[in-house]
Amino acid sequence: MTRPGLEMGKVYLVGAGPGDPGLLTVKGKALLAHADVVIYDALVGSSILELIPPTAERIYAGKHCGAHTLPQEQITALLMEKARTAAVVVRLKGGDPFIFGRGGEEMLALVQAGIPVEVVPGITAGIAASAYAGIPLTHRDLSSSVAFVTGHEAAGKYRPQVNWRALAGAVETLVIYMGMHNLSHIAAELLAGGKAPDTPVALIRWGTTPEQEIHLLRLQTLAGQPSPVAPPSIVVVGAVVSLAGLLPTLRPPVSYCSAALAQPESP
Amino acid sequence: MTRPGLEMGKVYLVGAGPGDPGLLTVKGKALLAHADVVIYDALVGSSILELIPPTAERIYAGKHCGAHTLPQEQITALLMEKARTAAVVVRLKGGDPFIFGRGGEEMLALVQAGIPVEVVPGITAGIAASAYAGIPLTHRDLSSSVAFVTGHEAAGKYRPQVNWRALAGAVETLVIYMGMHNLSHIAAELLAGGKAPDTPVALIRWGTTPEQEIHLLRLQTLAGQPSPVAPPSIVVVGAVVSLAGLLPTLRPPVSYCSAALAQPESP
Repeated sequence: MTRPGLEMGKVYLVGAGPGDPGLLTVKGKALLAHADVVIYDALVGSSILELIPPTAERIYAGKHCGAHTLPQEQITALLMEKARTAAVVVRLKGGDPFIFGRGGEEMLALVQAGIPVEVVPGITAGIAASAYAGIPLTHRDLSSSVAFVTGHEAAGKYRPQVNWRALAGAVETLVIYMGMHNLSHIAAELLAGGKAPDTPVALIRWGTTPEQEIHLLRLQTLAGQPSPVAPPSIVVVGAVVSLAGLLPTLRPPVSYCSAALAQPESP
Repeated sequence: MTRPGLEMGKVYLVGAGPGDPGLLTVKGKALLAHADVVIYDALVGSSILELIPPTAERIYAGKHCGAHTLPQEQITALLMEKARTAAVVVRLKGGDPFIFGRGGEEMLALVQAGIPVEVVPGITAGIAASAYAGIPLTHRDLSSSVAFVTGHEAAGKYRPQVNWRALAGAVETLVIYMGMHNLSHIAAELLAGGKAPDTPVALIRWGTTPEQEIHLLRLQTLAGQPSPVAPPSIVVVGAVVSLAGLLPTLRPPVSYCSAALAQPESP
């Protein structure tokens, strides 16, 4: 098998997108098809994993909250080891590698070890899951700013926690990743920071996959009670969520995608 | 030509991504290949436009600052008119349709007119241009929050202006779209809001295209002088920009992408 232009012994840090295989990038898909080794995370959708050729070695490096399958140091060491065998290594992460994917840290470690590495952005779940739920994150009359924030800060970081009260007054749309275990606290802080109690909120679980669930509620409902939805979910807070009932939602597999993509294109 | 699963008389609101055709989604590429009509904006890259089949009608609806080629109402009317001819209509926008693309407003107008419409997210320029410049927008030790904000608010909106001073204290990474004409003011406001004068800033022009330019400087340099870079550019403000010198940058066309994508995949 010839693989023109492909660098052997290189790690491609690829964003798998949010789950719908139609939202994978053209470049990401081509790299997967030519990979010798694919090291993937928990949030990479099964429809994406089906694109990995049977000849490629697959390694699961997924992390679950509180139960890391492989510690970050071991993942980095594994990437180096595989790259040194002159293989084409794809490091596949859900969403985008640089949006809460720890891609920056992995990439820096590889660079410092002298391993060639290249990033291939992916569509981040916050944007795609919202779109499939009929929520535009910005809107001329409703929102000129959108922030992506992690709701799950790792212990042991030297930095202060996310300042939810300041965020409440500074941005119009808020998208929270990994916030399910902390949602009651986050909601209370946003209210304390001045967000209106009736601010609409969407909880979107398994966005853009066939298991997609969309829950619409109000900010005050979330404060003081356990999260009504399990991970993996993203949370959207802001006036734009009020459009969710007006715009169509999309639930994959979308017929067009599965049918037309199965055949060669005929331009 | 058969187009299984494709709905005639429907508008597909497709994000073209930031410019590199390798970053177009698999679904977006397939839709372009089957379109009867493509109505596209100024920021859609020329490499993406080359994917439109010669049989399709192409309509430029680009907007430039201060000189709208087609007013928004005319674009919406055109989309309706073309959809009513039972054509497959692709409305192609740079980046993601719902991140400062006015996609939400177009979609709502079409829904209200009874036209079927479906959104196909794209990779937003803020994420991809930063990645190609070697800047991860989040990082475990440097940033748990990133905000996307427009620097060019339209006149006549009822809402207050973006609160730059509040943003300065609330988010760690700030990505500003369409901010070139207003950059001196924005920088002064961020400094007044408490951002350190030596906060690193990246100005990325034509990100992910062959014309990509990356300019690294400090926040204080931007205040009180005209922007040193012309549109279309995105601005990244925050500690993560300090990684730009450490991580590799990517300048398209990337050899792998242009070579391997030109041939059929051989899994």
